Amino acid sequence: MSVFTDVPLAQKLEGSLLKTYKQDDHPNKVFLAYKVCMTSQGQPWVSSVVRKTRMQIAQDPSLTYEYTPVMGMKSFIQASLNLLFGKDSQVIMENRAGGVHTVGDSGAFQLGAQFLKTWHQDSQVVYIISSHKAGGGCLPTEPHGLVFQDMGFTVYEHIFWDSARLCLDPSMLLDVVEQAPHGCIFVIGNIGSCKLTQGQWTQLMVLMKSKQIFPFFDIPYQGLTTDEGVGILVVVALSNELLLCVLSQLTDFARALWLNPPTTGARIITSVLCNPAMQGEWKQSLEGVVKNVMMTKEKVKEKLRLLGTPGSWDHITEQKGSHGYLGLNPQQVDYLVKKKHIYIPKNGRINFTCINSYNIDYITESVNEAVLFTKDSEK
Amino acid sequence: MSVFTDVPLAQKLEGSLLKTYKQDDHPNKVFLAYKVCMTSQGQPWVSSVVRKTRMQIAQDPSLTYEYTPVMGMKSFIQASLNLLFGKDSQVIMENRAGGVHTVGDSGAFQLGAQFLKTWHQDSQVVYIISSHKAGGGCLPTEPHGLVFQDMGFTVYEHIFWDSARLCLDPSMLLDVVEQAPHGCIFVIGNIGSCKLTQGQWTQLMVLMKSKQIFPFFDIPYQGLTTDEGVGILVVVALSNELLLCVLSQLTDFARALWLNPPTTGARIITSVLCNPAMQGEWKQSLEGVVKNVMMTKEKVKEKLRLLGTPGSWDHITEQKGSHGYLGLNPQQVDYLVKKKHIYIPKNGRINFTCINSYNIDYITESVNEAVLFTKDSEK
Repeated sequence: MSVFTDVPLAQKLEGSLLKTYKQDDHPNKVFLAYKVCMTSQGQPWVSSVVRKTRMQIAQDPSLTYEYTPVMGMKSFIQASLNLLFGKDSQVIMENRAGGVHTVGDSGAFQLGAQFLKTWHQDSQVVYIISSHKAGGGCLPTEPHGLVFQDMGFTVYEHIFWDSARLCLDPSMLLDVVEQAPHGCIFVIGNIGSCKLTQGQWTQLMVLMKSKQIFPFFDIPYQGLTTDEGVGILVVVALSNELLLCVLSQLTDFARALWLNPPTTGARIITSVLCNPAMQGEWKQSLEGVVKNVMMTKEKVKEKLRLLGTPGSWDHITEQKGSHGYLGLNPQQVDYLVKKKHIYIPKNGRINFTCINSYNIDYITESVNEAVLFTKDSEK
Repeated sequence: MSVFTDVPLAQKLEGSLLKTYKQDDHPNKVFLAYKVCMTSQGQPWVSSVVRKTRMQIAQDPSLTYEYTPVMGMKSFIQASLNLLFGKDSQVIMENRAGGVHTVGDSGAFQLGAQFLKTWHQDSQVVYIISSHKAGGGCLPTEPHGLVFQDMGFTVYEHIFWDSARLCLDPSMLLDVVEQAPHGCIFVIGNIGSCKLTQGQWTQLMVLMKSKQIFPFFDIPYQGLTTDEGVGILVVVALSNELLLCVLSQLTDFARALWLNPPTTGARIITSVLCNPAMQGEWKQSLEGVVKNVMMTKEKVKEKLRLLGTPGSWDHITEQKGSHGYLGLNPQQVDYLVKKKHIYIPKNGRINFTCINSYNIDYITESVNEAVLFTKDSEK
């Protein structure tokens, strides 16, 4: 008896850049594609308040470890909703915002996609804002694009990075929404750096409303903690009655997916959010991270200026957040990876917190070299 | 614009017994249906070694919190395989046992079912050993039965509890396997108390092999920890090459399900399993729990004997494990729940660790009353 002998090796989808980096023994190798924020010592950043809370939880003899309900930790859900909407917001006051505790990085997408598969049958078309240029044009490159596609949705990914003008282009975003089919699902994430004016935001909302486009917001990296693999799928309904119906259906899906979600991450987050002093400390530590990122970007720009690297590098400081486009073309990225052992995703979007005082000179000099080399080879 | 206005309230599948218990304000109320082991103080039991390890992890400044690979924590997977098969077992020596880190209570079922849906297309029939008598006969009562059914499998649940002879009946099990269709999937769990003789085990194996029945083992409650929501889906293949193919496909499914599994539970388990002293302490604490359960069962039996409760109660001590059938009929269970505020699942299978010195007298006296009452009403 032999089953599964016809199972082929699955196509490797990710991790190969990190794998190559790890196998590389070049002394100056750098990995600039970590998802989480890194410290100046090159370690994943964990807020001091998270360390403190983890310790308190471990030491608390009164904490019981009964299984949580399928929907998850109630206090965690409430604290997350308060953080997201504001405690006194209308949707909270009217009891029409709710959530289901989800697991891992893609748990909320999985749960949301299952729900939409069943209850949004009019349109099974999903538009996704991507940071990657789709390779062959057919396979999604974003992990949540794959989640929707595996479930049978038709997925379109769109990139708004204008590589000529070196910025995210709001008018490209509006064009895509304009052309999207009536009633489709639009996954909105990662547009913080796409500088829409107030007028463009209004235009976007009016467009989506008139076309009955369903918005699915992706709000990753709240900065609270790393590695705890916890999330929440949030629903805002027209009434509390409708909310309860939707949540009950989501709970049914969650039962099949994980039944009892792990709680360490949720416990830490809840403890921090429900204690004003801790929440203050957390926000302060986040501000520290943001300040460091901005300083790093300024330094990178200044070093490239001093090196006389051709081109404008203002786009580096104009992008918000820890991750941003370096603004290199594929040939330059390839040069950095292969010749300089600096590991950068193909789209040139890097994690700026991976740059620190130990590697900044090597990185900026290498970028300069890559730009000059490709300039020379153009001639 | 209003979407999802047609979403109905999902049918409540579980939790209503616990909910009723929590809303009950009777001073003697008892809940005997918890899934986890309880202490004599009525709190979920956590091994001292788990508390210690959780503290060590929280205090360890050297622990980094980078995301784990999609497949999960490698050290956790290896430690689990060693525990399950033995470090020097043939399948480990030949590199053909592997695993994927899973999440929550049903994560391994979800992942395994997705894999079987895709790669076991010859037969999509699933047989499940259940501890519940199926109600209407069509809906599965076990949570993993629902997982398989939601994915499109045809699910049959079978119960081997002989309510006349008050024991799990191995011949019923063998009959069911005999009648099961060629190539079906058989979920094997919870048969520790179904006392198969060596000959019956051999007969079972020969039957399953000859009918190419695919065994899917369910091994819950390793007793290591509660509430950490971690598991592992284990695969044994014919060769390392085949193993890698199967694992790669499983990893693809895991990417869509959670992408990065939470790690606290896995870290605790790995720390305990990889440290011989801690592993010894863990096993000792488990022995303590087992001894307490056996003592509780003996006491319950003895108290019923002293009360002169009609019937034999030997089946209580003959069943292994924390959970077991009290051997009551539905009318008696109903009496206990409604008249005595003792919350017991309909099948009469209870968690004996919920019985402690504070409630044992009330419970046994109530069982006696229930048996006498239904005896009277029979006349």
